[in-house]
Amino acid sequence: MKSINVGLLGIGTVGGGTYTVLTRNQEEIARRAGRPIAITRVADRNLELARQVTGGNVAVTDDAFAVVADPDIDIVVELIGGYTVARELVLKAIENGKHVVTANKALIALHGNEIFAAAQKKGVIVAFEAAVAGGIPIIKAVREGLAANRIEWIAGIINGTTNFILSEMREKGLAFADVLKEAQRLGYAEADPTFDVEGIDAAHKLMILAAIGFGIPVQFDKAYVEGITKLDAVDIRYAEELGYRVKLLGITKRTDKGVELRVHPTLIPEKRLIANVNGAMNAVLVKGDAVGPTLYYGAGAGAEPTASAVVADLVDVTRTHTTDVHQRVPHLAFQPDQLVDLPILPISEVSSGYYLRMRALDKPGVLADVTRILGDREISIDAMIQKEPQEGEEQADIIILTHVTVEKNMDDAIAAIEALPAISGKVTRLRMEELSR
Amino acid sequence: MKSINVGLLGIGTVGGGTYTVLTRNQEEIARRAGRPIAITRVADRNLELARQVTGGNVAVTDDAFAVVADPDIDIVVELIGGYTVARELVLKAIENGKHVVTANKALIALHGNEIFAAAQKKGVIVAFEAAVAGGIPIIKAVREGLAANRIEWIAGIINGTTNFILSEMREKGLAFADVLKEAQRLGYAEADPTFDVEGIDAAHKLMILAAIGFGIPVQFDKAYVEGITKLDAVDIRYAEELGYRVKLLGITKRTDKGVELRVHPTLIPEKRLIANVNGAMNAVLVKGDAVGPTLYYGAGAGAEPTASAVVADLVDVTRTHTTDVHQRVPHLAFQPDQLVDLPILPISEVSSGYYLRMRALDKPGVLADVTRILGDREISIDAMIQKEPQEGEEQADIIILTHVTVEKNMDDAIAAIEALPAISGKVTRLRMEELSR
Repeated sequence: MKSINVGLLGIGTVGGGTYTVLTRNQEEIARRAGRPIAITRVADRNLELARQVTGGNVAVTDDAFAVVADPDIDIVVELIGGYTVARELVLKAIENGKHVVTANKALIALHGNEIFAAAQKKGVIVAFEAAVAGGIPIIKAVREGLAANRIEWIAGIINGTTNFILSEMREKGLAFADVLKEAQRLGYAEADPTFDVEGIDAAHKLMILAAIGFGIPVQFDKAYVEGITKLDAVDIRYAEELGYRVKLLGITKRTDKGVELRVHPTLIPEKRLIANVNGAMNAVLVKGDAVGPTLYYGAGAGAEPTASAVVADLVDVTRTHTTDVHQRVPHLAFQPDQLVDLPILPISEVSSGYYLRMRALDKPGVLADVTRILGDREISIDAMIQKEPQEGEEQADIIILTHVTVEKNMDDAIAAIEALPAISGKVTRLRMEELSR
Repeated sequence: MKSINVGLLGIGTVGGGTYTVLTRNQEEIARRAGRPIAITRVADRNLELARQVTGGNVAVTDDAFAVVADPDIDIVVELIGGYTVARELVLKAIENGKHVVTANKALIALHGNEIFAAAQKKGVIVAFEAAVAGGIPIIKAVREGLAANRIEWIAGIINGTTNFILSEMREKGLAFADVLKEAQRLGYAEADPTFDVEGIDAAHKLMILAAIGFGIPVQFDKAYVEGITKLDAVDIRYAEELGYRVKLLGITKRTDKGVELRVHPTLIPEKRLIANVNGAMNAVLVKGDAVGPTLYYGAGAGAEPTASAVVADLVDVTRTHTTDVHQRVPHLAFQPDQLVDLPILPISEVSSGYYLRMRALDKPGVLADVTRILGDREISIDAMIQKEPQEGEEQADIIILTHVTVEKNMDDAIAAIEALPAISGKVTRLRMEELSR
């Protein structure tokens, strides 16, 4: 059978991995797909690199728009990243009637609605399995594997850099800044790590998961995003004493009031499988009403793991590109005219358990004041540790775990606690999720 | 758009769950699939039950063959179990041009080749996501999500009953027989638990995973199957002292010599995520050459989790039933003319690490003899514990962990060890897997 011709835009880490995997496994992939899938043209600004990776077996160019316009290309794989040129290229490819495979989470999280509308109009597929959690087939799992379910919530470790940093902070008791340097040295963190450590990358992926889980349009600007840069190693240690691990989670939940969409450091009971996902690995926990909790684990980044997802999409597109548009898996899991614009809740309306740490004068009545403030706001206490003051100090740490309450309630309680004369400085607040039901 | 009409055969636990899930989530499922999916006819020998579950909203019959012959039915869901009548019904449904969804692992593991050949000839789909690991979309993950990969091995906890029993044996230090009784009381084990505790159910599922992982025909008679009935609680405890957990794993590996296909109690390092899957939950670890290790976790049984997989298959069939046969996902992941009949290795040719426990007279030279026997066969020792004899006893337990060796080598070594005068009784042997690469 005639091969499917692929034009590859960008032959950096993931592009190189895609070329390698598709070449190495070409015979087995053809046996699966029923026809060969071949990269026939590569565009990269670095022509030398492109020639080196492809060994001179493929036509290379530095003009990505030429590939997108090439009538011999069936599927365009966009691995350039960013959302300016990438957006133009993807929209142009769609306009030219080409199917698109992309690993670009920022592009989908920010411009997905426009891109999917254009694709729908042209009857082409935009596949993006590689955009979330690298090699883990999580888009397929949520969109197809759990299609019987009303998805209730999704919580994931979807950024490997921050999970590596948190794992090291815990295991070695080191501060964030020190581990970041180590991570940069090892190549787990970029020179400018902002996107990772401030939670933006995780939020892009979370937005995509929320959209396919609940059938809502992408609306990245409404996500609450808090990274790990202000996380203190002492809180990781106290959390551990209480039986919890701290992970940067992307959490999205469907509630009666709207959809929660938030990325922040989160305490999770250490018994949960996801609490034991360490190093640069990713894992996504998905709760469906019929299936209950399910978990998907694997490498969330890297050349070949990400390529695994890109090539799986190529196989999918190869299989379904001749299918009637209405019979294909919809881009956002639900038919395009069946998306529902559920409100995204501001963080003040989100509910969770809380971990609070404060420094208090070691004198009678302080604990009574704190617990009264919480009680007045109907925030119930789950556990508490009061540390002995260090030698020569008059203040001691108090750590409190609370049951679930709404964030604005907690904001109010924290303001009242910070106003107590016996409490010095700010109250440290971390959110806590049981992830059990 | 016109609904898809489903005929349901068997309205027991899973059938009832399927009816419930499809009814409860019908609106959301239609929004995904683009058209309603409706159970329009139910067959069960227990007409009373069928009427009760369906609340009189669906035509019920005690004649499953009438449903299979009904020209208004598009998809037949077979949830009867067993492989005599179920086989006849499925083949008849195919002959009548109907698509089939089944949760019947025994049927697929034993008669899959015949059934898929018939389906291929008729151009219909036989979907079986629910046959392996209940609600976990593992068939979809391996067959589609990891399509870029050369699958190297799959190892899974794919029987909830035995995992529940092993978890309880470890946590409470109880004997197999005692925990089995408890499991039966709680409904985690059948009155006749043979299929579960002897590993046969796990082997059925493993055969299916091996077939879709490597593109080989099903050939259940060649699987090595060893259950947990002879497992001693003392070995679970010793394994734990050495940093391992004992799980009933289904393991299939592609090697240069052929395919390993085996179910047996297995020591796994406690650090592995899969070693921490407890209770009746399932988890499958899949290693692809590009993606590396990936893990899929969830409920492996129960009414609604299994229904989740059945209904996902209904959505898939609804989407792809009008697609050209060659463009559909092939039943065994590879195009039917591209299956390869790789040899299945007998257990004597399988390689693994080993845990050995023996009782030895507490006198000099015994350990030297044992280690010499292993060394002569190039079996290297990874760890060893020699226990002090209990008060008043002359014999003590010796526990040895070995590096990977081929089973026939180990058989030979064990025979030689058992022949030593200082060793009393049999050597207990458990296989051990690192599951790291």
